[in-house]
Amino acid sequence: MSEAETFEDIVAAVSESVDPSPEEVERMERVATALIGRVEAAIETLPVEADVVRVGSTARETWISGDRDIDLFVRFSPSIERDALEKYGLAVGHEVLPDGAEEFAEHPYVKSTVDGFDIDLVPCYDVDDPGEIKSAVDRTPFHAEYVQSRLTNELARDVRLAKQFFTGIGVYGSDLRTEGFSGYLTELLVLEYGGFRPMIEAAAAWHPPIDLDPEDHGRVTFDDPLTVIDPTDPGRNVAAVLSTENVARLQHYARELLEDPRAELFTAVEPDPLDERALRAELQNRGTTPVAIRFDAPDIVEDQLYPQLRRSRLGVIEELDRRGFDVCRSMAIADETAVLFAELAVTERPRIERHVGPPVHVRDHAEGFFRKYEGTDAYGPFIEENRYVVERSREYTTAEAFLNSEDLFTVRLGTHVETALETGYDVLVGEEITALIDEFGVELAAYFDPTP
Amino acid sequence: MSEAETFEDIVAAVSESVDPSPEEVERMERVATALIGRVEAAIETLPVEADVVRVGSTARETWISGDRDIDLFVRFSPSIERDALEKYGLAVGHEVLPDGAEEFAEHPYVKSTVDGFDIDLVPCYDVDDPGEIKSAVDRTPFHAEYVQSRLTNELARDVRLAKQFFTGIGVYGSDLRTEGFSGYLTELLVLEYGGFRPMIEAAAAWHPPIDLDPEDHGRVTFDDPLTVIDPTDPGRNVAAVLSTENVARLQHYARELLEDPRAELFTAVEPDPLDERALRAELQNRGTTPVAIRFDAPDIVEDQLYPQLRRSRLGVIEELDRRGFDVCRSMAIADETAVLFAELAVTERPRIERHVGPPVHVRDHAEGFFRKYEGTDAYGPFIEENRYVVERSREYTTAEAFLNSEDLFTVRLGTHVETALETGYDVLVGEEITALIDEFGVELAAYFDPTP
Repeated sequence: MSEAETFEDIVAAVSESVDPSPEEVERMERVATALIGRVEAAIETLPVEADVVRVGSTARETWISGDRDIDLFVRFSPSIERDALEKYGLAVGHEVLPDGAEEFAEHPYVKSTVDGFDIDLVPCYDVDDPGEIKSAVDRTPFHAEYVQSRLTNELARDVRLAKQFFTGIGVYGSDLRTEGFSGYLTELLVLEYGGFRPMIEAAAAWHPPIDLDPEDHGRVTFDDPLTVIDPTDPGRNVAAVLSTENVARLQHYARELLEDPRAELFTAVEPDPLDERALRAELQNRGTTPVAIRFDAPDIVEDQLYPQLRRSRLGVIEELDRRGFDVCRSMAIADETAVLFAELAVTERPRIERHVGPPVHVRDHAEGFFRKYEGTDAYGPFIEENRYVVERSREYTTAEAFLNSEDLFTVRLGTHVETALETGYDVLVGEEITALIDEFGVELAAYFDPTP
Repeated sequence: MSEAETFEDIVAAVSESVDPSPEEVERMERVATALIGRVEAAIETLPVEADVVRVGSTARETWISGDRDIDLFVRFSPSIERDALEKYGLAVGHEVLPDGAEEFAEHPYVKSTVDGFDIDLVPCYDVDDPGEIKSAVDRTPFHAEYVQSRLTNELARDVRLAKQFFTGIGVYGSDLRTEGFSGYLTELLVLEYGGFRPMIEAAAAWHPPIDLDPEDHGRVTFDDPLTVIDPTDPGRNVAAVLSTENVARLQHYARELLEDPRAELFTAVEPDPLDERALRAELQNRGTTPVAIRFDAPDIVEDQLYPQLRRSRLGVIEELDRRGFDVCRSMAIADETAVLFAELAVTERPRIERHVGPPVHVRDHAEGFFRKYEGTDAYGPFIEENRYVVERSREYTTAEAFLNSEDLFTVRLGTHVETALETGYDVLVGEEITALIDEFGVELAAYFDPTP
């Protein structure tokens, strides 16, 4: 039996693999410097003042070996109009990146590949204070400056470790699919706790809600499990998109890393796709009834798609629960098609359902309820405790019947999901879900082998 | 179409049938007077002082035609010991009723039949004030005196109507099977509201809890839907055994009687017993799964049996609900055998069950939970919201398996019911409940045609 590795052993080994080599750094810097020169030359030809600032993790040594992103922001005076900013921004972009394509975030900007690096060239306003920003991207240079001025080499190394750890445990990324830790948030946490290990030790012991305010200037409180007041903007929680699950997940894996340090925790592993035979075995073993609504994935960006899928999934399972099908677990997944998947503990409900009426002493309501059901084919009204109760016939005795009905559209669905469903969808029940294997084998494998 | 009958028409017709005829009254009085004379003679032979008092409804014209009960209480001085009271009480009883049998309530007493009348001859203490009673029966003569001194002929007639109405709608009787209105409570309500119709109108509009205190001397408050402070004892609620259901039931039928007066409301109807074919049709129509635990009825009086059956039924259905079988309705019935009957909306549960653990941030508990399930064949632990969750294998996937297991004895059962179950029981599931038809056809008929 090999001796257990220490936290420090693991961290050293991971650093080895994630720290960019001197050659990699040199190549990155050469490309970035050349691009900055070309941007400055392009700015010269404009009829307005502007400057260029390099932002993002590759500007501040918190990037991980293999990152290829160079982000350059062109800053214009806040006195110019937005359409002028967009026009000049794109002009600089196309001048510097002649093969570039226009993308759109809050403004249009130009994106391209140069010598194997992914370049974003983004226009923004050069405001004096982040409180005066005119668009969200205007904040980025302040973040860059704040972090850059505080990072030692050692802390930069610890940020790289933290990012790799967050990636390994699946909580890295502030996109709305992941709802995890952004790069900036990771940097702030390492700065706040003074390194990777102290951050891990703190997280392992957190009692959410956790409120951090590095500049001690926050004036607003947030109803989030983790609040990190933006050092450059007292009104903003940098951890706003972070989900409750991801906070708990970090806590769990932080403890794992401390109690049983191992390199695997720094590596995300995608499970092998489930095959049909294994899927059938799982269904057999669990004894549940899976149901899936499958439809063409709406053609919208992931940051729109996943919140809508989540909302739709919750709307559907809430209604399935309300109708007594007792959802055991669920997920929403998307590729070419999108799927709202729910596993039911109850396959079928009886033909009758209890319906509890008003207390008998609330005379008007009680009499109305009694007259409504008296002489119908409902059982009752009879009295339980102080209320009328009837057993009336149930609308849907199976989830399948409900999911195939118009009533599906009465639940809270994401807008584009609703539109997509209106054009058609399939309902798969029980072993019919084997039809999902080709497209979603990996997601199904993860579903049936759930980890923290 | 015949013209609708008025409240007064109905009441007149019902009175006709429930008022004892002069001949009936004369016969009752003759027997009672003769008995009193014999009791007085028997008392003469005792070495202690005593007197006889006639109590109960037949003593005060609030009895209904057909009643055959004559209750005579022999009152002794509170200075004599309880065993002397019992000895002398029985001596008088056997002297007056040579064929009488000894019964036992709070004291032993003698019961017999004379000229077709049912005679109870009960010893009690002659206390000065109901606050000083030495046994519950000592209170009865005070009740008799209180009501007798306040009843006009008209009010006596209205008490008879009220008793008949309460009997018709199934709420008459303060035994612990019925949990309804006692004769004394009925009398107090008619006195309090000044007649049958005003009482019905008041009940129709009640907003429980209702607090009545005829002598305005109550010092204690009760957590009951109806409180009627005993005019002869300020610390006692005469309506203490009355169930919430029976209060609501009275309200319901009071409104029926006012809105659509009809004589049927004064007549209890027992449904025809359900036959096997009709029972199968009901099960088919409802789509539920009935389960029944059948065992030999414990040999105890009804006032002990029914509370124990109720308690046991609640214990069992609570546990069936907790285990996910979703009890739709239930009943406890007894004759030679006793049956705890429950109708399930869920027949079978999956092999797995969700088990929600502690919040991840409660470190000690969370780590203990994680270690307990890590590496077992449970699914997970995984994280939902801020908690660990596992899907572990379920103990019982059917109610039948649970009911046949030792775990049945972990639920709250009545003492004698538990003992009876220990000697053996049958579990009937689905159509097997047709085996109950012979003994409980009437109860099953009422169950499948529930009324207020």
